[in-house]
Amino acid sequence: MVFITRKERFNAAHRLFLPEYSDEENLRVFGKCSNPNWHGHNYTLFVTVKGEVNEKTGFVIDLKILSGIINARVIEIVDHKNINLEVPFMKGKLASTENLAIGIWNELKEDIQEQNALLHCVRLEETENNIAEYFGE
Amino acid sequence: MVFITRKERFNAAHRLFLPEYSDEENLRVFGKCSNPNWHGHNYTLFVTVKGEVNEKTGFVIDLKILSGIINARVIEIVDHKNINLEVPFMKGKLASTENLAIGIWNELKEDIQEQNALLHCVRLEETENNIAEYFGE
Amino acid sequence: MVFITRKERFNAAHRLFLPEYSDEENLRVFGKCSNPNWHGHNYTLFVTVKGEVNEKTGFVIDLKILSGIINARVIEIVDHKNINLEVPFMKGKLASTENLAIGIWNELKEDIQEQNALLHCVRLEETENNIAEYFGE
Amino acid sequence: MVFITRKERFNAAHRLFLPEYSDEENLRVFGKCSNPNWHGHNYTLFVTVKGEVNEKTGFVIDLKILSGIINARVIEIVDHKNINLEVPFMKGKLASTENLAIGIWNELKEDIQEQNALLHCVRLEETENNIAEYFGE
Amino acid sequence: MVFITRKERFNAAHRLFLPEYSDEENLRVFGKCSNPNWHGHNYTLFVTVKGEVNEKTGFVIDLKILSGIINARVIEIVDHKNINLEVPFMKGKLASTENLAIGIWNELKEDIQEQNALLHCVRLEETENNIAEYFGE
Amino acid sequence: MVFITRKERFNAAHRLFLPEYSDEENLRVFGKCSNPNWHGHNYTLFVTVKGEVNEKTGFVIDLKILSGIINARVIEIVDHKNINLEVPFMKGKLASTENLAIGIWNELKEDIQEQNALLHCVRLEETENNIAEYFGE
Repeated sequence: MVFITRKERFNAAHRLFLPEYSDEENLRVFGKCSNPNWHGHNYTLFVTVKGEVNEKTGFVIDLKILSGIINARVIEIVDHKNINLEVPFMKGKLASTENLAIGIWNELKEDIQEQNALLHCVRLEETENNIAEYFGE
Repeated sequence: MVFITRKERFNAAHRLFLPEYSDEENLRVFGKCSNPNWHGHNYTLFVTVKGEVNEKTGFVIDLKILSGIINARVIEIVDHKNINLEVPFMKGKLASTENLAIGIWNELKEDIQEQNALLHCVRLEETENNIAEYFGE
Repeated sequence: MVFITRKERFNAAHRLFLPEYSDEENLRVFGKCSNPNWHGHNYTLFVTVKGEVNEKTGFVIDLKILSGIINARVIEIVDHKNINLEVPFMKGKLASTENLAIGIWNELKEDIQEQNALLHCVRLEETENNIAEYFGE
Repeated sequence: MVFITRKERFNAAHRLFLPEYSDEENLRVFGKCSNPNWHGHNYTLFVTVKGEVNEKTGFVIDLKILSGIINARVIEIVDHKNINLEVPFMKGKLASTENLAIGIWNELKEDIQEQNALLHCVRLEETENNIAEYFGE
Repeated sequence: MVFITRKERFNAAHRLFLPEYSDEENLRVFGKCSNPNWHGHNYTLFVTVKGEVNEKTGFVIDLKILSGIINARVIEIVDHKNINLEVPFMKGKLASTENLAIGIWNELKEDIQEQNALLHCVRLEETENNIAEYFGE
Repeated sequence: MVFITRKERFNAAHRLFLPEYSDEENLRVFGKCSNPNWHGHNYTLFVTVKGEVNEKTGFVIDLKILSGIINARVIEIVDHKNINLEVPFMKGKLASTENLAIGIWNELKEDIQEQNALLHCVRLEETENNIAEYFGE
């Protein structure tokens, strides 16, 4: 069993807030991340897949195919978008790094399984200082 | 003469667009950067100052003071903000990396001169791939 | 269960040596790291915490709170300090990256538990080439 | 138990291809990585070792010794070499990042065990975007 | 006048050698970089362009256009290629970082001028430790 | 004329202080950098040399030779040392990044000139946020 990781990037706007709270309450709980006019990040996404090495190709999964799946399922949906307003798989959820990592996991899991590999980890870096990892359970 | 550089960071939302254009025209000129719902970046800012080394302190400028100027004049104004809507020194200007670098230069120039040093360069990295530098003329 | 990581930095002086050894013996065992006049590093610290995502906030732990704990318990104690002479939790221990990672773990564990999260990993990078990780057992 | 990691680097040429395929078939399966005239990479290698901290030295393993093992067993064999043509432990294997990580594991395992430590992970970065990890089973 | 930089990457094989030298002589002059079986690198390319900021677009040059020029003129010619054997603009030249930077400059200069901007610098990083810069004269 | 840069690293301890000041006065002027028990850094050094490209070798300067000069003249003198106490070329000078960059310039200048190249810039990064550059005048 070998683990293989593909790194991709996207830029997006978001806001941390609860709609039932006033702007003042959101500011108290979420700080400047609750700015009603939005802010944004260069997100870095690492998708790790595990599996046996194919004897013919030497690959766990062809990284061009893995990159294609990540781009079709995630990057095209979130890149240069507003995560709160425009990303279907984040509808009704707080746009935290944690929830975004879980959402990305759910978008990727099946397509990777169809390639005879297993999604192992979604690592999402919001900034160089703030990182979330989800292993599916 | 020695050059001294301080690196700072901020996160912000923005949009590239001309108000006199329709969304379709903006999309044609500015691509996905014109998304009316905004997107955002982790900006990295390098401010380079030049001057003689003070014989007493060994400094061109005390980097705590330089960092304080950058934070008071720029970071507190742009961090976790919407550059188009909330940054006074960008009012009426296209929120490009180029214009943002020029705007930051103008905010910093005088405070640095009062410290007996000269602002030499504002380098602004929007992403790891896109970088603007302004030398004041 | 999601894993969330906060990156912090500190600069410190240290020396690898055994007090019962002569300088020559220390040089033989620890090489140039045993210099009696000290040397130092820019340490990079990654603290990983695991837990359930809070449904209200979308957080495993508020990263402002986690950063506050790390700064109060570790950074203020070690930053711009001499690890051998000035850091209480390293008293009587060899100032290796391994021991420093264990020491930091012990300083952080309880405060993080009080936030209903579990400390998962302390990763300490002494240089870009030398890294220690401790998982608490 | 503490985990300690040493980072090393090497530059090499390689080609992904099956000798029983024509150039056209290899191009279809492996894309531009099958170029018969070779291409190459700056590989980054992270070797992680686990063990108890030695009470005397404060080390899991002396990183100078670990670096020495990695250099003698791997770097001197692969650096500035053609992986397909010149690396004995890759003879007859596809020169994928996966296979290279497994090959490096096998070269390192015993020498590290003789130092009373256990090889835990070989992480090999072919580019900043493509990463393989092998844990020995 | 603002300076704008676009970062691109490519992977390639090369060899430093003089055809009139024997392998032994090449080894003496160029060291392990003269390996007759090739080695390779992940090259990082920074192209810096200078010009006035267009009042309408806020751009010195549209970075999508600049990236398109670099990809058409350079990346597609050198990526996953053997620099000595397959890159027309390096024919008959030693495949040093210096000569490669000059060659890239010559490939880019005119296309950038047609965009009403001036090529200012080609910076080529062969490894994180070895960097060449060419300013056109 | 091409510019060629070599990156090297060293780790050292230092302290910012004036011997004629009390510890309290030094603390007021230099902050935590004046800690009498020292602190330290992983310094990153970039040495840039300019010159014509040698037609035979394709080099401005052989980077193995440049690296050898930097190691003999600087790294072996400062690495794992106390800059205030043990570095001859810093005797009697404040151990600021500015003065260290100037000191390194003076150590390197002649040896590089003997290689028919010109020292262009010494860039010294004390941390990722604090950088000094010296161009020799």
